[in-house]
Amino acid sequence: MSFIAPVQDMLFDMQYLADLDKLAQDVPAYADAGMETAQAVLQEAANLVQDVIAPINFQGDKNPSTWKDGVVTAAAGFKEAYKQYVEGGWQGLQHPGQYGGQDLPKTIGAAVGEMCNAANISFALCPMLTDGAIEALLTAGSDELKDKYLPKLVSGEWTGTMNLTEPQAGSDLAAVRSRAEPVGDGSYKVFGTKIFITWGEHDMADNIIHLVLARVAGAPEGVKGISLFVVPKFMVNADGSIGDRNDVQCVSIEHKLGIKGSATCVLQFGDNGGANGYLVGEENRGLEYMFIMMNAARYAVGVQGIAVTERAYQHAVNYARERVQSRPVDGSVKAPVAIINHPDIKRMLLTMRATAEGTRAMAIYAASLYDIEHNHPDATIAADSQAMYEFMVPLIKGYSTETSLETTSLGVQVHGGMGFIEETGAAQYYRDAKILTIYEGTTAIQANDLVGRKTVRDGGAVAKKIAGMIEQTEGQLAQSGSEAAKAMLESLTAARKSFLEVVDFVVNNTKSDPNAVFAGSVPYLMLAGNLVSGWQMARALLISEQKLAEGGNDDYGPAFYQNKIQTARFYADQILSRVPAVGYSILKGHGATNAFNVDAF
Amino acid sequence: MSFIAPVQDMLFDMQYLADLDKLAQDVPAYADAGMETAQAVLQEAANLVQDVIAPINFQGDKNPSTWKDGVVTAAAGFKEAYKQYVEGGWQGLQHPGQYGGQDLPKTIGAAVGEMCNAANISFALCPMLTDGAIEALLTAGSDELKDKYLPKLVSGEWTGTMNLTEPQAGSDLAAVRSRAEPVGDGSYKVFGTKIFITWGEHDMADNIIHLVLARVAGAPEGVKGISLFVVPKFMVNADGSIGDRNDVQCVSIEHKLGIKGSATCVLQFGDNGGANGYLVGEENRGLEYMFIMMNAARYAVGVQGIAVTERAYQHAVNYARERVQSRPVDGSVKAPVAIINHPDIKRMLLTMRATAEGTRAMAIYAASLYDIEHNHPDATIAADSQAMYEFMVPLIKGYSTETSLETTSLGVQVHGGMGFIEETGAAQYYRDAKILTIYEGTTAIQANDLVGRKTVRDGGAVAKKIAGMIEQTEGQLAQSGSEAAKAMLESLTAARKSFLEVVDFVVNNTKSDPNAVFAGSVPYLMLAGNLVSGWQMARALLISEQKLAEGGNDDYGPAFYQNKIQTARFYADQILSRVPAVGYSILKGHGATNAFNVDAF
Repeated sequence: MSFIAPVQDMLFDMQYLADLDKLAQDVPAYADAGMETAQAVLQEAANLVQDVIAPINFQGDKNPSTWKDGVVTAAAGFKEAYKQYVEGGWQGLQHPGQYGGQDLPKTIGAAVGEMCNAANISFALCPMLTDGAIEALLTAGSDELKDKYLPKLVSGEWTGTMNLTEPQAGSDLAAVRSRAEPVGDGSYKVFGTKIFITWGEHDMADNIIHLVLARVAGAPEGVKGISLFVVPKFMVNADGSIGDRNDVQCVSIEHKLGIKGSATCVLQFGDNGGANGYLVGEENRGLEYMFIMMNAARYAVGVQGIAVTERAYQHAVNYARERVQSRPVDGSVKAPVAIINHPDIKRMLLTMRATAEGTRAMAIYAASLYDIEHNHPDATIAADSQAMYEFMVPLIKGYSTETSLETTSLGVQVHGGMGFIEETGAAQYYRDAKILTIYEGTTAIQANDLVGRKTVRDGGAVAKKIAGMIEQTEGQLAQSGSEAAKAMLESLTAARKSFLEVVDFVVNNTKSDPNAVFAGSVPYLMLAGNLVSGWQMARALLISEQKLAEGGNDDYGPAFYQNKIQTARFYADQILSRVPAVGYSILKGHGATNAFNVDAF
Repeated sequence: MSFIAPVQDMLFDMQYLADLDKLAQDVPAYADAGMETAQAVLQEAANLVQDVIAPINFQGDKNPSTWKDGVVTAAAGFKEAYKQYVEGGWQGLQHPGQYGGQDLPKTIGAAVGEMCNAANISFALCPMLTDGAIEALLTAGSDELKDKYLPKLVSGEWTGTMNLTEPQAGSDLAAVRSRAEPVGDGSYKVFGTKIFITWGEHDMADNIIHLVLARVAGAPEGVKGISLFVVPKFMVNADGSIGDRNDVQCVSIEHKLGIKGSATCVLQFGDNGGANGYLVGEENRGLEYMFIMMNAARYAVGVQGIAVTERAYQHAVNYARERVQSRPVDGSVKAPVAIINHPDIKRMLLTMRATAEGTRAMAIYAASLYDIEHNHPDATIAADSQAMYEFMVPLIKGYSTETSLETTSLGVQVHGGMGFIEETGAAQYYRDAKILTIYEGTTAIQANDLVGRKTVRDGGAVAKKIAGMIEQTEGQLAQSGSEAAKAMLESLTAARKSFLEVVDFVVNNTKSDPNAVFAGSVPYLMLAGNLVSGWQMARALLISEQKLAEGGNDDYGPAFYQNKIQTARFYADQILSRVPAVGYSILKGHGATNAFNVDAF
């Protein structure tokens, strides 16, 4: 169950799809973060995840983190691995130098995040949640809060959590009931129960900084009355040292389908007089801040989908190389061969590979937009990039995770009966992946975001801009004229046209007939995610053809480019080609959905 | 986690799609097995599965069957439930009256099987394997073997197993190494290790009759040297009483992803001198007999797929009715509503429902073909039905189980975060379902069967005959002209045309370019299964329209017919409409698959 970080593919995406060297050139903040840095960082990260974090994945699943009397003991090896993660400075990778971080672009950070998650989703969740807490504090925290908490969060010595969900408030945060009472000194007492809090309690760090949504007494109902608080597990003294235990307890952890290595906690705030909490930003703007944090987290969950696809793929490839069964269908060998030679096994492995490469390309491309958004000196370019990035976040979260359900299932399938045996390890990915389409907003919630904020709000402008860029790529494919480029052109054109039809449908009907649009919102997300991933594969195909025409004798080498072209062509023929059928179901399929009487289910 | 057997939908399929009353009329053997009998049997079965078998499903998953010192203790409640199953005479439902069975048609038996599996797959596997053993003995066993074993198998007092797989022989049975040595008295000593033997050992019955593939010393290599043996757990004395323990031991059971209630055994034959085995039929014809058994088992596994879809659907519906979250998107209610009202939840539930109904309709229709094949007095009609039935077996096995992966995933998704918590119960179906695409032949093995034996062998004749029948249904849809019929017509026509293109491709290329065909064999199976299910939904739609036109005041009632029409329309718009894209990927997609160098994975 060894894992090899896909460093080369990541570097290719950075270099040619995200144009990292141009980013370094154009954006002073990233002047030192070109390909050379990327290469060094990724190689170092690969060493860590391969040697330290991946090997404890299976055991963490078999013997999960445990709870006893409010204390959570992380799965075996996790504490030690986390120590190495902190010592390597990995938590601070994308965070400001001002607080001890390394100021690297998300374009690099996202790739490291993928590796880490491919190695061990349960483990990687802890730093991922800390990232979210850092993001929220950076966005809205007072200087006092920042100075107090950020250095230790950025170093990873303390970890962070996001406390949103309550039993009655899952997708609908308007229903949050946790409350906060001002005590007069600017701080609050926080009361309430939060569920599904990932790594809400553990023994890997000295302190845990909970970011908690709660209502201040007298706040308006609904989402406009929710505030965000910092509630540390241990109070922090003025000198930065750890003080008394705060009034927050982990009362239980969940027995889950997957990501068993991570503790998913029920946290009880304020049972003994109230947990000390500190307002982040202004009262009643909590949801707004949380969304910033959540957008980062949603992108990161999308990356988890890519990661588990990659891991499942590698696992399946290894098995398919070793397992000998049946003669080739073409009679070329008169004896059983390794199953990797059978066309259906190749089809399954290529589906996994093409999905991993396509979604990775989309995510890394999007990360570069985020970096431009945040640090490009030209405000127009930054704003354009922001709009593109925000359009892509629900695709990355939704499409990369939904497809991971298919890929991890194929991963089990490649193993045949052995896949169903837990000792084989393939089943873990299938179980782990299922949370990805749920947490940080289900796919339906992502689709609502895509429809409402990302498509309807600007009248489909960004969607159409992306379609225009895709059309340019189609022009390049037509110029190439190779067999692979023609195949890609056919699928990409059909997919883009279908996308445009759906965008028009969404823009024109969301207000007048919202049920019609939302009956197809998830299919719209899947269509768009497939298209944007396919578009990046098309770009990768063109670049690879160009590099091969130039000889291909660079760090990647001709074989890399040839494989990229074949994988892109597979994506075109077998995955991107599904788009028009999805478009059809969106445009035609809402009638039956909405006509069906709910009492009749 | 209550379960209600979908009796009405099953009866509808029997009455109008399978035309059970006509079967009873035309086939003397089933003269008493018309709709009246079906209704009585299904209601009785529903009582048993709802009250006895379903309630122990969740606990069986949580506290699986256990192994100690060679003894397997079935999960709590299983032994008692099995006793009731036997006492009710359910094992003999489809089996000959000569051996104590009830001589009922498969058309009824399959529905009972679905209920039983929906209630509890782990439990239902035991009678299912016994069915296989009965089938093999009926087909090829000597009168002596039949008389000795069938009465107790048909009553369910003894259970049966299928022993095919060995560590090196999974999909490829040519690699079987277990061996049998004649001892001179007509019996054999059997030696070898068999793995993945479902209910290979347990405490629910007095004896277990293993059907075992092994090679007789000196037999030819490959599949032509495999023979089939009966190896009882306990020897059976001449008077039918239980004798000494035979030399077969359960040396371990597997730790599995799902179907944990059932014991999956490693069986060791002959470690103490050889297990007494009795040849079934002739030497070296074992695979042929086993295929008869396997065809029955493959159909039954397809039914398991339908069953788990139905169970996951009901579970999700119940949750969606109770869970209140978020306001309606159309603003019709100014407060949170039960999530069943949200369009995306409806889309997911309808996907599950339409899949259950479509695959059930296909399976029950196919069962009637089986019954005609086996008992119709007109040999031509019987032969035609056989050809149609055999074409459909891989579709039922492959399509109904592959779709169950999607439906059980949607079932978890409907539950949101709660779906990921094992206590909720939805995750069990997701885990259970994953074996269905693997055992009794993976989907790829089914697809090989579909391509080779079922399509190429007759030059696509049966496939085209089915397409012709579908075209007739299209004519009826055109005549109807209702909105639903028009929607169905559009999808069905497009799907049939795509199917015909693929059939031609398969027929024309399997010999000359097998890699091209087999790169798309599973998609071909999925396409064909979708089409045949959609066809049955189209027929159901037409019948429902006709019944409504007549007032619909029968046992089903107008609401049933209206829901059937909407579900069929949903199937058309959202599921059947996927077919042409699959066709495209088959015709265009093989190039990339086969061009990809296996060393490059």
